Amino acid sequence: MYGHFSQNNREYVIEKPDTPTPWINYLSNSEYCAMISNTAGGYSFHIDPRDRRITRYRYNGLPVDRPGRYIYIRDDETGSYWSPTWQPTLTRLDSYECRHGLGYTRISSSYSGVEAEVTYFVPVDNNVEIWMLTLRNSSGRTRNLKLFTYSEFCLWQAARDQNDLQSVQFVGISRNEDGIVLYHLHDDSTGYAFFATSKDIAGYDCDRETFIGPYRSEANPIAVEIGACKGSVAIGGNPIAATAIPISLKQGESETVVYVLGVAPDRDQARELARKFKSSAIVNEEFLRLQDHWSSYLDKLVSVTPDLEFDEVVNIWNQYQCRTTFRWSRYVSFYETGIGRGMGFRDCSQDILGVLHALPTDVRQRIVDLARNQFKSGRVYHIYFPLSGEGGFPDYVKKDMQFFSDDHLWIILAVSEYIKETGDFGILDERVNFVDGPAVSLYRHLKKSIDFTLSNMGNHGLPLLGTADWNDPMSLPGPNNAAESVFTAMLFHKALRELAGLSHETRKNTDAQLFTSLADQTRIHLNDVAWDGSWYVRAFTDSGEPLGTSTSKEGRLFINAQSWSVISGVASKSRGVAAMDSVNELLATEYGIMLLGPAFWRYRSDIGALSSYAPGLKENASIWSHANAWAIIAESMLGRGDQAYDYYKKLAPPTKNKIAEIHRAEPYVYAQTIAGRDHPMFGMAKQSWLTGTAAWMLKAASSYILGIQPQYHGLSVDPCIPKAWGQFKVKRQFRNATYDIEVRNPDSVSSGVKAVSVDDTPSETGILPVFADGHTHKVIVTMG
Amino acid sequence: MYGHFSQNNREYVIEKPDTPTPWINYLSNSEYCAMISNTAGGYSFHIDPRDRRITRYRYNGLPVDRPGRYIYIRDDETGSYWSPTWQPTLTRLDSYECRHGLGYTRISSSYSGVEAEVTYFVPVDNNVEIWMLTLRNSSGRTRNLKLFTYSEFCLWQAARDQNDLQSVQFVGISRNEDGIVLYHLHDDSTGYAFFATSKDIAGYDCDRETFIGPYRSEANPIAVEIGACKGSVAIGGNPIAATAIPISLKQGESETVVYVLGVAPDRDQARELARKFKSSAIVNEEFLRLQDHWSSYLDKLVSVTPDLEFDEVVNIWNQYQCRTTFRWSRYVSFYETGIGRGMGFRDCSQDILGVLHALPTDVRQRIVDLARNQFKSGRVYHIYFPLSGEGGFPDYVKKDMQFFSDDHLWIILAVSEYIKETGDFGILDERVNFVDGPAVSLYRHLKKSIDFTLSNMGNHGLPLLGTADWNDPMSLPGPNNAAESVFTAMLFHKALRELAGLSHETRKNTDAQLFTSLADQTRIHLNDVAWDGSWYVRAFTDSGEPLGTSTSKEGRLFINAQSWSVISGVASKSRGVAAMDSVNELLATEYGIMLLGPAFWRYRSDIGALSSYAPGLKENASIWSHANAWAIIAESMLGRGDQAYDYYKKLAPPTKNKIAEIHRAEPYVYAQTIAGRDHPMFGMAKQSWLTGTAAWMLKAASSYILGIQPQYHGLSVDPCIPKAWGQFKVKRQFRNATYDIEVRNPDSVSSGVKAVSVDDTPSETGILPVFADGHTHKVIVTMG
Repeated sequence: MYGHFSQNNREYVIEKPDTPTPWINYLSNSEYCAMISNTAGGYSFHIDPRDRRITRYRYNGLPVDRPGRYIYIRDDETGSYWSPTWQPTLTRLDSYECRHGLGYTRISSSYSGVEAEVTYFVPVDNNVEIWMLTLRNSSGRTRNLKLFTYSEFCLWQAARDQNDLQSVQFVGISRNEDGIVLYHLHDDSTGYAFFATSKDIAGYDCDRETFIGPYRSEANPIAVEIGACKGSVAIGGNPIAATAIPISLKQGESETVVYVLGVAPDRDQARELARKFKSSAIVNEEFLRLQDHWSSYLDKLVSVTPDLEFDEVVNIWNQYQCRTTFRWSRYVSFYETGIGRGMGFRDCSQDILGVLHALPTDVRQRIVDLARNQFKSGRVYHIYFPLSGEGGFPDYVKKDMQFFSDDHLWIILAVSEYIKETGDFGILDERVNFVDGPAVSLYRHLKKSIDFTLSNMGNHGLPLLGTADWNDPMSLPGPNNAAESVFTAMLFHKALRELAGLSHETRKNTDAQLFTSLADQTRIHLNDVAWDGSWYVRAFTDSGEPLGTSTSKEGRLFINAQSWSVISGVASKSRGVAAMDSVNELLATEYGIMLLGPAFWRYRSDIGALSSYAPGLKENASIWSHANAWAIIAESMLGRGDQAYDYYKKLAPPTKNKIAEIHRAEPYVYAQTIAGRDHPMFGMAKQSWLTGTAAWMLKAASSYILGIQPQYHGLSVDPCIPKAWGQFKVKRQFRNATYDIEVRNPDSVSSGVKAVSVDDTPSETGILPVFADGHTHKVIVTMG
Repeated sequence: MYGHFSQNNREYVIEKPDTPTPWINYLSNSEYCAMISNTAGGYSFHIDPRDRRITRYRYNGLPVDRPGRYIYIRDDETGSYWSPTWQPTLTRLDSYECRHGLGYTRISSSYSGVEAEVTYFVPVDNNVEIWMLTLRNSSGRTRNLKLFTYSEFCLWQAARDQNDLQSVQFVGISRNEDGIVLYHLHDDSTGYAFFATSKDIAGYDCDRETFIGPYRSEANPIAVEIGACKGSVAIGGNPIAATAIPISLKQGESETVVYVLGVAPDRDQARELARKFKSSAIVNEEFLRLQDHWSSYLDKLVSVTPDLEFDEVVNIWNQYQCRTTFRWSRYVSFYETGIGRGMGFRDCSQDILGVLHALPTDVRQRIVDLARNQFKSGRVYHIYFPLSGEGGFPDYVKKDMQFFSDDHLWIILAVSEYIKETGDFGILDERVNFVDGPAVSLYRHLKKSIDFTLSNMGNHGLPLLGTADWNDPMSLPGPNNAAESVFTAMLFHKALRELAGLSHETRKNTDAQLFTSLADQTRIHLNDVAWDGSWYVRAFTDSGEPLGTSTSKEGRLFINAQSWSVISGVASKSRGVAAMDSVNELLATEYGIMLLGPAFWRYRSDIGALSSYAPGLKENASIWSHANAWAIIAESMLGRGDQAYDYYKKLAPPTKNKIAEIHRAEPYVYAQTIAGRDHPMFGMAKQSWLTGTAAWMLKAASSYILGIQPQYHGLSVDPCIPKAWGQFKVKRQFRNATYDIEVRNPDSVSSGVKAVSVDDTPSETGILPVFADGHTHKVIVTMG
């Protein structure tokens, strides 16, 4: 173990700096984002990590995790120096602690009798990041220290910055103006970045090579070694902001220095913002605002169950992660370089599930942004870029099948969930342009999604796979472009039912009947063609062969066709149980459920890129966390609370914290993928933070395990819990009212509700009504 | 100074490891290429650095120049270790020397009484690189050492390798099979790489993180520190080849170990190739073959002048660099990341000038490859990729002006030069496809180039600029797409004349008349519209304003419109002299001639990307070496030998060697750009190695200063030298005969020839005839 959860402070506390991988935090308002590791590594960007990258990061570098927001403390008497965040000097500190909190990271350490605490955060409303450093001298003698800092600017366009050196190394300018380092391009095209300090600087460098020195690195800059900056300017080359500030501390004395790094559209605004944050009072005020912001955010959904770890995840870390996935989709992390991928259409449609209850206005905007990426045919772009809104497809898209079979369907689920949460049926009338056509109502966009699938059916009467479905690299290539997706067919069934529901609610009865009847056909047909005996097949390949059958040695069983048979309502109860039992038997492991099994041991041209991954990794039979959430939901829907909870716990961060040496990635958030049974590093996680797991795990916990589910006209409560739970409570904000829900389980059941009372009055329907009165309402649910 | 030229060995000898930038060498046959710095940094690729990158390099990293072909020597008694190439341990060595030779690099050093010499080379015919290490113990006692090596594989596709970590980190496999490390992708799509040793290994690691250890780097791998590898396999992650071999040496003993890294299409061929190079005898034999190869290459053009430094450049380094630019255009260096740029159409067309006399067959193929990138309209792709031949345009190409005004014209000059060198008129009948059309003769392709320019003329009757001309970032954007290039008009004039000459030679008299008459019109018209009074303007902007006039404060004078007015034959003698005098007055500096002056001090939207470079850098008024070569040629054509030679010497590598602290880049090859007078680092070079300067400087030296110029029916000799030269000699191979030319200058003139004798017979024409008899012919030229 490398750390522990501090529930009171809502922090994860890292006790050793040398975590198996950098363990990071996202410090971000809606525009400025700073990723920071437990040793201060990482970088910042503004709105779009591709086009407005502020500082650099050397992905997959050696040593890992450089550069970052670096501070050096130099003892001017001995010439020795260290970093209070461990990196980049890697000095063995006398003490070390990193607290990743909500929107801030605080690293404390001591060395040679000097205690240092640096708090990094991004204020709620300004495009800056604060590094607030407090030093305390407890060495028993007066210390003459010099503080150095180092930030390395990126030349804004992150891809060019690393690939087009022959050009971009001649455009950046960084220089000191009145004690503020200002950085911009010669053509001023991208605005200004700046770095400023609350105390006057005694020296600075703006040119990397001057500060670092030849053949040196961030670990031993020549300026720090000799104890003085050279006042360099950067005109081309690698612009940086490095500062030097002398500090003399008597025994017991302490002093705080604030550093601020930020962006502004022009020189004047940059200077003004820099000046604002030179004030410690303002910095402290902004830090309090940030804490209030998160308290208020998390107060909207609070569970109190017999399982403290469960509450820790649901009430803090899962919600926090959901906010991050909503903001950055799969675009930028310590694994995703923030260059090519943009915001995923399918990803965003699902990520909203994790923030709907807290950020309905932002979700509404996101849904509209997504709809704008739909073509008249109903097809949608796979990705879009946040700065420009411009959509696109990844390079690997099939040139003659330029769509993913599932993308466009997810927005139907997103809209129905949004309306269930908010009651805002008005969004359906929102007029949104097509990529290639004029504005129509959002409702019409949703219908176009259905049309697109209907017009792209294959030989088995199932949706054509296109480039792929939810399993991006499962491309099932071939000469006929004839592969079909069973998973997408199930999703289609679900989307049809949701759209039927929406149509019904809005009194579009013809539509409602049509979609219901299409759903019925789809369900019956699927059960005809896709049932393999003990489970559903996953797809049909280009040559028409079923994929995922009991006769296969590799890729025998795929989880998604089973979980979604239940989630979508395609499976009968008995088939659902059989399918999920097969999953349990063949795919469940101590670290989670594998996406498929067994792995493909060789590349297969009929499977495609999926089988280009080494066995047990990624889509080739790793434990895919996102799909685990669906299995949990499916088990809950089958009423098997103990099984659902077992799956949930196997994946939950506190469990991973106990096996951090194996799991390796941050144990306070979900990771996309965990090496499966077929890999020697079985249990090792990669791609932490940005995964659909976050939203779906929150959904699984809140709406399926705890059972609190928004409906068009109220909240339903239908838990599916471990039998051992005697009771639990949930506080839930819903449409401008607070529901204090107490669930009692006197009969030790997993599911089933026998009584509901609201404000001490028994409920007939069991649906908690919409109060929208700003008050708190007391709900008692009795299971049995 | 950091080193010196060793003319006898044809080596540049670096005496200190910490050169201002990594000083590199290209070790390459026609397929395998290894770039290596003076401290063993750099990487390797096979055919295409974008798609078949074998090992990794961290561009613009800290410390610079990692990783590389690393060897660690560990003293097993003390546990201390060092690298005999300085990097990556950066241990202060007792002695150090790096010799960059022709196709090999040898680094020698000693530390603690152990002498090490490692020779890196790529054999002429095999896709491998050899690291041949010899250790000698002169410490006075027995030493128990352990040798470690480190190579870090790239996941073949270089861009994905660094940007798409979330995917490519799951596909690479590296493992030890019978003492050979084999590396491939799980899908086997890209063949195999391997690493083998002549002595049996005692240990290995294939997984980077295992060998290096957490939070460490190449400087201090945990395996080297503890003295043992762990036998790791890489299945995903970062595959490497690391080996450990124990060596015990008594005082005075020495031992040689050969390491071989290479590629092969499959596992069996990889193993076979690995076995072949385990033999020291074969390795020594291949090293001798390599030396013979280069001796024979350089023997085709040898000058002996009063200026030893001049000869050193012409006979060795300039020719060596030309071979590199011919091979890799502007695609891959320590500045060009080998990802996006591909092979330039314009670049390749010029680079052939530097190798024509030595590689006529390769040049023929290159010309055909280029022609294949032409459209029926005559327009050409700006770049193409060597593995696939696939052409394209860079991202910055104007969407509605998808051409460069000059690209397609250069191939005419290439073909005429090729035929003058070889007499191979048959190439004109070679049938080559258009990108969008069927095969036609190469001659017809050349005519299409003329057609394209004729169909794309602007308001001043000059060629439209399109995206840009030779000055890529001089895009002169605007709403009308109306910018015109004076430079291209001059190039057009030159191309018309060359094509007229070719038509005449092949008895296409109508064509010859047409092209001659078009040339005449172009010349007269240019002198009408583009003469500014003391020089030619450079272009007309989108709004029709002249660029580069005496009334401008910025961008007053551009060198190319002056040098090319002479080279193209557009200028009268008096205008040519006036134009070049203006260049001398306004643009010449002690470090070379600036591309333009003064620099643009602010970005100007009517100028475009050129003015986005900081003043004095790149196309914004740096000293652009390529353009210097043209100025030298122009001065030679004007008969001003001392001026031409002065320009030549200012740029020549030996001059830069004496100011290496200022020049910074390698002083044995030309660099693309040198910071101009407007920049604080005035004199600092960047983008060494890959520059059109190489070919044109060789052309300037051999055909204009020395004056030996191939013609359709023989060699002409018309030197333009410093008056102080009393004589010089040139050995020149030309169409299967050797010309031993002695030039005498009894009257101390710069130019003018009064007598020529061939094999002791006076020549009437002064043209040395084509002998094609395999013999040597004695030529005496008397100037005066």
